[in-house]
Amino acid sequence: MNIGIDMMGGDFAPLEAVKGVKQYLLNNDFEGLHLVLFGDEGLLQPLLSRYEIPADKYKVVATTQVIDMHEHPTKALKEKTDSSIAVGFKYMAAGKIDAFISAGNTGAMMVGAMFSIRVVEGVLRPTISSVIPKQDGTTGLLLDVGLNADCKPEQLNQFAVMGAVFSKYIFGVDDPKVGLMNVGEEEGKGNILAQAAYPMLKANKAINFIGNVEGRDVFNHKADVMVCEGFTGNVVLKMAESIYDIAQSQHIDNPYLNRFNFEIYGGTPVLGVEKPVIIGHGISHDTAFSNMIDVAVRMLNTDVLGKVKEAIGNM
Amino acid sequence: MNIGIDMMGGDFAPLEAVKGVKQYLLNNDFEGLHLVLFGDEGLLQPLLSRYEIPADKYKVVATTQVIDMHEHPTKALKEKTDSSIAVGFKYMAAGKIDAFISAGNTGAMMVGAMFSIRVVEGVLRPTISSVIPKQDGTTGLLLDVGLNADCKPEQLNQFAVMGAVFSKYIFGVDDPKVGLMNVGEEEGKGNILAQAAYPMLKANKAINFIGNVEGRDVFNHKADVMVCEGFTGNVVLKMAESIYDIAQSQHIDNPYLNRFNFEIYGGTPVLGVEKPVIIGHGISHDTAFSNMIDVAVRMLNTDVLGKVKEAIGNM
Repeated sequence: MNIGIDMMGGDFAPLEAVKGVKQYLLNNDFEGLHLVLFGDEGLLQPLLSRYEIPADKYKVVATTQVIDMHEHPTKALKEKTDSSIAVGFKYMAAGKIDAFISAGNTGAMMVGAMFSIRVVEGVLRPTISSVIPKQDGTTGLLLDVGLNADCKPEQLNQFAVMGAVFSKYIFGVDDPKVGLMNVGEEEGKGNILAQAAYPMLKANKAINFIGNVEGRDVFNHKADVMVCEGFTGNVVLKMAESIYDIAQSQHIDNPYLNRFNFEIYGGTPVLGVEKPVIIGHGISHDTAFSNMIDVAVRMLNTDVLGKVKEAIGNM
Repeated sequence: MNIGIDMMGGDFAPLEAVKGVKQYLLNNDFEGLHLVLFGDEGLLQPLLSRYEIPADKYKVVATTQVIDMHEHPTKALKEKTDSSIAVGFKYMAAGKIDAFISAGNTGAMMVGAMFSIRVVEGVLRPTISSVIPKQDGTTGLLLDVGLNADCKPEQLNQFAVMGAVFSKYIFGVDDPKVGLMNVGEEEGKGNILAQAAYPMLKANKAINFIGNVEGRDVFNHKADVMVCEGFTGNVVLKMAESIYDIAQSQHIDNPYLNRFNFEIYGGTPVLGVEKPVIIGHGISHDTAFSNMIDVAVRMLNTDVLGKVKEAIGNM
């Protein structure tokens, strides 16, 4: 199992990426794992030595460029052909890595994912999701969280299927409850999109559709998987992230609110492409990198993307 | 100043409505105020006596019907002509009350507002807003929060103007900063609606447009007035409300999170109609009713709806 990591992505790269690798290896004794680290060799080697990363666990692929957080994704990928992200996707396209992780430019990661590896046949558009900490201790999933700001109802129906598969295989939720994010409980509520999506979701035999969920249900256990277009989903996600910052700034130390530290979830996988691509927050620290590796390993071990493909094929 | 109150609206009516009247009158010594209470006289009179509401401050208009929370708004208003909401709007249309307050069926209140009193000339659609407690102690405004699930960019531009006027005259914010709710900071980000609304807001001389705000900015002080369509706004509002419930259930007693108790804001006024109509939450208690009266009084005293009309006329 070869997992590629963009060591230059994120605000604290490459230090936190190296520390994340260290953390993952300390806590996991997985024989078959090999890490392929893309980045500036001159920066990386001293750090890898200082943090005593076992040499048999990784190889460095030296790259000379970095795509910055605010660069235009397509332009940057085209021009910076020796950037850690561009080279990572070249390795992925060539089958030299099985998964690719980055906390760098989200747009570049998305463009790379969609053009370097195949979108699953039948998938209208890939999607990105986010973990949502539920009050009862379970782990919810919200999607789309920003990749698809405008959606057709058929896309929401596919997000539901992909989210349910992910929830089942990665979070271990048996028969996940799928809810449509909406402005009211009853069928018929909502904007044009939600009104059109509801009957499709209701008729979809591949999911356990429980109807509409509202903003008040994001953190309760009404649904395990919550589906919406990427505009609303992105606003919800960033609001949820801000709750942790508020708790910190208010000096509130509460076990539930501590679960809003999105660092512990590591990153968001792209669903609907053929191989695991995991995108982390720009502010990712070691724990986030370690958890991204963990999610990639679990995605490969469970073949969750194969299950997604199968589920989409059966729709 | 005659303020009408639907005493039968809300989960705890009429008791909490009567207690709310009591609370308002205890804390405010406003000579010119007269309350017109719509509801079941047999239920109301004993409560009004028990809570010693001064007889010169109110009159009861006896009604025999109640529109339940889940009734179809238009149908209910048409059929239940002697309901507290229907009679209230009749009084409003006849000029016998200057403002109308209810914690009852939101849809019926909206339909009543739009068909009994005039929509301000030039307003495409009225809107409802919500107070958002900001971390720095100031009071933000979010609109639309559910009346207009699908919007045109021109509507967002009008919401911005109406919200800015409300923020200025009711919250006392000088030159309120107006932000467009979006998925990124830069111009050009967003769904089709947000992309189209941005240049209109930028060109709008009547407001102090500061650009996009994101989910993470809902509770910070980047913008005083945050504009979006009613789908996203409704999800944001209900999520914000749930933060208070979470704090309660987690036994977190924090001054900032306590401001998420939406009871203290009383209700949401309809903007874009000619007279104050204030809609409260179904779970409104005495404080919410007292605050709804307070908002109605302030709206009348500042003639905020006249200012809205003026601002829309100048667009």
